[in-house]
Amino acid sequence: MSSTDPIANLATLIRCPSVTPAEGGALSALDAMLAPLGFKIDRVMAKDENTPDIENLYARLGNDGPHLLFAGHTDVVPVGNEADWSRPPFAADIADGEMYGRGAVDMKGGIACFVAAVARHIEKNGAPKGSISFLITGDEEGPAINGTTKLLEWAADKGERWDACLVGEPTNPDQLGDMIKIGRRGSLSGKITVHGVQGHAAYPHLADNPVRGVLALTSALMHPPFDAGTDNFQPSNLEVTTIDVANSAVNVIPARATASFNIRFNDTWSVESLQSEILARLDRAAQESPLRAGREPVKYDIVWSERPSHVFLTHNEALISSLSDAVEAVVGRRPKLSTTGGTSDARFIKDHCPVVEFGPVGQTMHMVDERVSVSDLETLTQIYETFIDRWFGNAAA
Amino acid sequence: MSSTDPIANLATLIRCPSVTPAEGGALSALDAMLAPLGFKIDRVMAKDENTPDIENLYARLGNDGPHLLFAGHTDVVPVGNEADWSRPPFAADIADGEMYGRGAVDMKGGIACFVAAVARHIEKNGAPKGSISFLITGDEEGPAINGTTKLLEWAADKGERWDACLVGEPTNPDQLGDMIKIGRRGSLSGKITVHGVQGHAAYPHLADNPVRGVLALTSALMHPPFDAGTDNFQPSNLEVTTIDVANSAVNVIPARATASFNIRFNDTWSVESLQSEILARLDRAAQESPLRAGREPVKYDIVWSERPSHVFLTHNEALISSLSDAVEAVVGRRPKLSTTGGTSDARFIKDHCPVVEFGPVGQTMHMVDERVSVSDLETLTQIYETFIDRWFGNAAA
Ligand SMILES: [Zn+2]
Ligand SMILES: [Zn+2]
Repeated sequence: MSSTDPIANLATLIRCPSVTPAEGGALSALDAMLAPLGFKIDRVMAKDENTPDIENLYARLGNDGPHLLFAGHTDVVPVGNEADWSRPPFAADIADGEMYGRGAVDMKGGIACFVAAVARHIEKNGAPKGSISFLITGDEEGPAINGTTKLLEWAADKGERWDACLVGEPTNPDQLGDMIKIGRRGSLSGKITVHGVQGHAAYPHLADNPVRGVLALTSALMHPPFDAGTDNFQPSNLEVTTIDVANSAVNVIPARATASFNIRFNDTWSVESLQSEILARLDRAAQESPLRAGREPVKYDIVWSERPSHVFLTHNEALISSLSDAVEAVVGRRPKLSTTGGTSDARFIKDHCPVVEFGPVGQTMHMVDERVSVSDLETLTQIYETFIDRWFGNAAA
Repeated sequence: MSSTDPIANLATLIRCPSVTPAEGGALSALDAMLAPLGFKIDRVMAKDENTPDIENLYARLGNDGPHLLFAGHTDVVPVGNEADWSRPPFAADIADGEMYGRGAVDMKGGIACFVAAVARHIEKNGAPKGSISFLITGDEEGPAINGTTKLLEWAADKGERWDACLVGEPTNPDQLGDMIKIGRRGSLSGKITVHGVQGHAAYPHLADNPVRGVLALTSALMHPPFDAGTDNFQPSNLEVTTIDVANSAVNVIPARATASFNIRFNDTWSVESLQSEILARLDRAAQESPLRAGREPVKYDIVWSERPSHVFLTHNEALISSLSDAVEAVVGRRPKLSTTGGTSDARFIKDHCPVVEFGPVGQTMHMVDERVSVSDLETLTQIYETFIDRWFGNAAA
């Protein structure tokens, strides 16, 4: 059985209920598709404190360079209220030209197509002129502790080196061929606690209302803008995601207020320079704010999130043009090179080799009735196959 | 038994554990002090939905004018952790010249002294040249639904009219004689809900973060100041007492944010004009804020507290000078006429007659080890007695 049909591949994968962190049979199904193609397969279990054990998969075909890596995940987000689905979430039903199922676009669809593309490439050309590998985790939608990072480490430890990586996440906003992701903004989060002095609302001079402080500090984070954007990136944007005081007594000035924020930042900043800027803004606002005229500086502390995401931009011309050319060859238009959107596991891969992302239309990801156009699956397979052909041609040249 | 000793009176009252809403025997004890002096006593039960039934007391001596009213409450706040008290909270122990007990200053002390002052006045002069009444509630520290307002209504309904009222709340910050309250600021509370659009922190243009809105609105309430104060009042002051979002997902822009505020306002404002000013500030901030540049106006609603307190200032010269002169005659210095601090039941009484407030040193009110100086009890009784003498003299003149 040759796995050249992305529709059959995807149906098999969707029928495995691999809701994170469950393997759900999805990696075994992938294993069964890749082994007949000649891949050497490792199932890698990862463990850590306080997170579930996770099964991951690494598969390699070929021993020589150049070495092309395909990366992704088989775990999916929960289905939500199953009664809201018009088709069962793990049945892979096809209706009106679309295959329904959790993970159809995020991202069993990309995996199914890349497997089919590799199978077709081999059918047509024999073994690739180099190596092709799959790095597939079961922990992208969960805590992501036991997933791509550990699997990359495990592979690098045993000597694996890659020349380029394609991540099959859904990158197209509206139509297949819209967009390749060639980088991602960074993401940094922090939590501020403002320490005030509790008191009665009628005696504000005996108290120090931390709400004044938290307003002064968070306002300084939200304005002015951090930058105006760069050649390849949107402007950095900070959102205060919560402010909490939880004081139910209307006559009482509370003792403490907290605020959390998340900033998506571009290549104007490193994590370190951005933290410095944020601290400078906070310290300035703590010293002087019209909201707190004549009072002592705001007493506050800040805790940064443990794992910020670093911004990255891929410059590798062979990788980007192979993929752009493949898209244009199949769909007749050139994709936009973008760095928009959230973070992805590409942020970990970029430390090992150049990485780009291209996959299905993402509109229904994480939603009820997640589904993918059946004709898109064929088109995406053709794009992937053309990309494989061109990349090995370019990399060999 | 003649009740001329304020120390004995207070010990009797403290030994009644009248933690709001419990009567605790305190009104019966007061009844037993006043009846022998000739007072006609009514025990008035008040009921309302969703609040405990409350017992109140109204006592009148005399049938003619002028009519002097003494108002107060026998209910007390809970003791907190009784183990933290150095003397039991309902024992009326005396140590180092101070009587300990919950309610010693707020405000069984004032009641005990006024009873003693009336008893001495009668002992010396016979029946007063007019009437003296007590309006004592058991619901000042609780919801205050079944307390002073209902008792005033009840009394007014049966034809009671007063020429002046003294409230015996603790008004002295440091030493007996410091301060008479001749008015109170108003108090107005509201709760703002800002309605945003939930979304992912990486796609802020698809969302509308209500934290931006709530910061814009609350900042506009806190700055600039509402006024600079008036002849008799401090500047109005607004405190945002809580902001709540309760969003624990750092990558998620929340859907809603709420903020509550309380403003203590002076005679620059009526409740109505202040509400207009607040709405104008909110609407202006909703339209344009640097925190939300280029976005639609903030969608918000506001709910006002059901029972705002109106500001008031007492101008009655006979009342104020009788009391000020009495203080000066006993302690040798003239008290400050003040309108500072929180609200009190005087805000209800002011609709019936001129009202001022004077009572013990308030430092330990509502605290562990609430206590009153025994010598202050005697001094306060002398001040009250002198006040009664002078007020009837002035009122008759
Ligand atoms: Zn994904
Ligand atoms: Zn009181």
